[in-house]
Amino acid sequence: MEVVIIGAGAVGMKTASRIRRKDPEAKITVVEAGKWVSMSRCGLPYFVEGKVGGINDLRKTPYGAIRDPEFFRGLKNIEVLTETKALGIDRQRKVLKISRNGSEDELNYEYLVLATGAKSVKPKIPGIDSEKVLGLNTPEDAQRILKFVKEGAKKAVVIGAGFIGLEACEALRTLGLEVTLIEALDRLAPTMLDPEISRLLTAHLKEKGVKVLTSTKVEKIVENGGLKIYAGKELEADFAVVATGVRPNSELAGNAGLSIGKFGGIVVNKKLQTGDSCIYAGGDCVETVNLLTGERVYAPFGDVANKHGRVIADNITGGNSTFPGVLGTAILKVFDFTVGVTGLNEENAKKFFRVSSVLVSGLDRTHYYPGAGVLRIKLVFVERSQRLIGAQIVGNGDVDKRIDVLATAILGKMTLNDLENLDLAYAPPYSPALDPVITSAHVAKNKLDSLFKAIRAEEVKQMLERGEDLLILDVRNEAEAKNFKISLPKLVNIPLPELRKRLGELPKDKLIVVACPLGLRAYEASRILLGEGFEKVRVLEGGFPYLLTL
Amino acid sequence: MEVVIIGAGAVGMKTASRIRRKDPEAKITVVEAGKWVSMSRCGLPYFVEGKVGGINDLRKTPYGAIRDPEFFRGLKNIEVLTETKALGIDRQRKVLKISRNGSEDELNYEYLVLATGAKSVKPKIPGIDSEKVLGLNTPEDAQRILKFVKEGAKKAVVIGAGFIGLEACEALRTLGLEVTLIEALDRLAPTMLDPEISRLLTAHLKEKGVKVLTSTKVEKIVENGGLKIYAGKELEADFAVVATGVRPNSELAGNAGLSIGKFGGIVVNKKLQTGDSCIYAGGDCVETVNLLTGERVYAPFGDVANKHGRVIADNITGGNSTFPGVLGTAILKVFDFTVGVTGLNEENAKKFFRVSSVLVSGLDRTHYYPGAGVLRIKLVFVERSQRLIGAQIVGNGDVDKRIDVLATAILGKMTLNDLENLDLAYAPPYSPALDPVITSAHVAKNKLDSLFKAIRAEEVKQMLERGEDLLILDVRNEAEAKNFKISLPKLVNIPLPELRKRLGELPKDKLIVVACPLGLRAYEASRILLGEGFEKVRVLEGGFPYLLTL
Repeated sequence: MEVVIIGAGAVGMKTASRIRRKDPEAKITVVEAGKWVSMSRCGLPYFVEGKVGGINDLRKTPYGAIRDPEFFRGLKNIEVLTETKALGIDRQRKVLKISRNGSEDELNYEYLVLATGAKSVKPKIPGIDSEKVLGLNTPEDAQRILKFVKEGAKKAVVIGAGFIGLEACEALRTLGLEVTLIEALDRLAPTMLDPEISRLLTAHLKEKGVKVLTSTKVEKIVENGGLKIYAGKELEADFAVVATGVRPNSELAGNAGLSIGKFGGIVVNKKLQTGDSCIYAGGDCVETVNLLTGERVYAPFGDVANKHGRVIADNITGGNSTFPGVLGTAILKVFDFTVGVTGLNEENAKKFFRVSSVLVSGLDRTHYYPGAGVLRIKLVFVERSQRLIGAQIVGNGDVDKRIDVLATAILGKMTLNDLENLDLAYAPPYSPALDPVITSAHVAKNKLDSLFKAIRAEEVKQMLERGEDLLILDVRNEAEAKNFKISLPKLVNIPLPELRKRLGELPKDKLIVVACPLGLRAYEASRILLGEGFEKVRVLEGGFPYLLTL
Repeated sequence: MEVVIIGAGAVGMKTASRIRRKDPEAKITVVEAGKWVSMSRCGLPYFVEGKVGGINDLRKTPYGAIRDPEFFRGLKNIEVLTETKALGIDRQRKVLKISRNGSEDELNYEYLVLATGAKSVKPKIPGIDSEKVLGLNTPEDAQRILKFVKEGAKKAVVIGAGFIGLEACEALRTLGLEVTLIEALDRLAPTMLDPEISRLLTAHLKEKGVKVLTSTKVEKIVENGGLKIYAGKELEADFAVVATGVRPNSELAGNAGLSIGKFGGIVVNKKLQTGDSCIYAGGDCVETVNLLTGERVYAPFGDVANKHGRVIADNITGGNSTFPGVLGTAILKVFDFTVGVTGLNEENAKKFFRVSSVLVSGLDRTHYYPGAGVLRIKLVFVERSQRLIGAQIVGNGDVDKRIDVLATAILGKMTLNDLENLDLAYAPPYSPALDPVITSAHVAKNKLDSLFKAIRAEEVKQMLERGEDLLILDVRNEAEAKNFKISLPKLVNIPLPELRKRLGELPKDKLIVVACPLGLRAYEASRILLGEGFEKVRVLEGGFPYLLTL
């Protein structure tokens, strides 16, 4: 059997390796336009930041072998042709035309695998092709960024606040640069995060010294020794990093008459077969299906690519494997925060379902165990069935654990009831007695039962702006109120333990919005007030930060 | 409504607090024999170890208020009567008889909640009642241990290798003591862990300087200034900690004619109601149901207690909540290792299902990101349906995340196919491109497909002992082989990248057991050998440590 694979990234090399493990006889050739093989591009921001020793670490196996063509030839009997361009597919003759070392050649295939990946999209801005405007997609990009820094660069602008742009901000800031982040849409990670979660992230970036400009379009970039970037105002920078998304590399497939979908990705079935049964495709060059909506989506993620490689290899070697689709789970480290997302955010979910949501904040482990961090969780669920369909979490706690649990719960079609009965592992170093995932389901149910009478920060803000007659009851204790002053109009501080004794200080005719950092005490206070005959009481959902970042 | 609750631990105070939140009028009285309220006993080992500042931290709210009777009275209008003994229940008159300050009294109830917890079981050993033999169940125990240490104790013996015993080992060793752990059964955490997982834990304890004696019964304890402990041999110690399990406190219920189950726990229905519809019970004093087997089990865990409190409060206030049961999820920190377990271990699973299992080792994040740790995972699944029914994980990596994902998957009735299609969050700081949970499902499927031809360490050991003619092929690289010498008979080292060139050095007629630290390279090597016509090839399942700890 002759298999030709185009692209030596995750899909290509995973496919090649597994075919070899299943078929010792197959002739396997991988054609790669660039010079890198099995390069972990997801690691580039950490290489720039200095957390990864050298660029070669990103192409090593866990046991330290460098994954170059010799490695694949010697160990796996796989031929990798780097710096080799795939020119065209002759489907009738089952031949791939290539160009290599300046001459053209043909490779016969029984099966062809398109693992051509994605290319970054540069917005059409005058001056964007300057040598001082870089991506963060290749080792060369990373090395050029480090060269700028070494040569004394002090200021950088990052254009695009998707996950790679945000990782770039952390890396550059950690290197000591002044960093300005520019995003055309109204918030960070706009395709992933709902506005209120995104705002928490913005606040953290600002805390870390990153200047954040949202709803801001870059109009023009001019080289003037450094760069002058026109974006409403004029910004000076030594260099800029553009991370405004990627697009599937699907020209080769399109030219060969294979179907291309609405996102520009190759169309494949669940077996990852294109319309030509001898041609498979996977990874960043294909479109996939969202498991919750059934809609086609584009999901250029490293984990998906690896899964695709396995499925393709199985099918080529006579198996029957399928890739059902994605939930859109993703995770991001930004300074001390982790941001995780799975399923649909509320904005997207509303297009398909009648949904409710809840904001719940809590600690990731027992408060007395060293290192406890905060998690701010948003659950999105279908109103009638109470089925979970999305979650977003941000904070300095163990976000990754909870987002993975929730991703598993979504795939298991779990409801709020199921979530509250999850048997998760409790010991003080790992979780509070009730894990925040479980607590979130409790709070959601309390909200549905009108026990937790919530108000969102946006509504409070609007009422304050309209000058409505309300009172914000801060139930933090005195030390907290003194150490972290909150300047909001109409704010009164009564520590929770004193509340029952000081009820006389509160008006019965005004709306009282009870608030605290996490929301736990505010909920308790609201139950006291409602029990004592106060009728207009609401809890600031999720805690103070949602209001303070507005 | 008058509610009386017996026990001011997790169940009792959770029940009381939630009843108050739902019913501002209810008269709520909690009767507690001891002097502590809402004391987090799970935190005691960390207090002893010095990770928790003071004992009061274990009874504080996350915002720092001490949960004493005044706190509950002032904030929640809940009466907590400490140092008050519940003498008997008169179900006909709906009265609880108590004794307090030397005099007897009666409390009327509309609903009674039994939250009487558990008591530790001390084995019947001569001398076990010595003042130098302690539990680790109460703040007083913890303080007495610290007093011994302060007074110069150098040697401690821990009797019982359940989770609390193991936590005690870490705490005492960290304080600088010589620690010997004695377990009557053949391994550590014998009710939780299968033997091979338990052995990895034993090895880690030994690495940390704990002496471990399994299959060892303590015959006699004699005070001689310090202690002399007779357990096959004679051990000297300054004090001993006994942690040989707990038993439900159910006498009060039994005396009132309520049903007691085979583990000595109060029998309740899913609403946590006893046979008397006015009496509820929850937490460590009741029995519950294992969700996988349907059998009654005893699950004295802090998270279960908290869930019970919520369910009881809901039902007493007119709701309709149920607690379906447990999977038996548990987690433990022991020095640098975490041990997590969920569902059934293989030994128990075999009593109910026809099961298979797989041992898979891997890194918890990308190998190039700082801080990557190892996870050693065992999956237990039903042979025919491939449904996951149990998992055990041990290692210095992020065990807690994976055990929670697997616990969620078990509750979602997921199969190996579902596991491999989990959409978990990938970024280099959090996981490899394919999370170890997904890889484990892949390896399990490879094993079922006979692609991964495995042999268990136990079998290899037996063959070596019988002197059978086999060869152990160590495929680590030279540096690894030099830095960590493995002394096993019949061991040959050929680094994986050289294998194809050095096939001539290997015999075709002998069994070749391929091995490496994690198992990844050994699997690759086995595919090469099988592809090249070697027929008797097996991979040491899970990696070298399983063999080296035998």
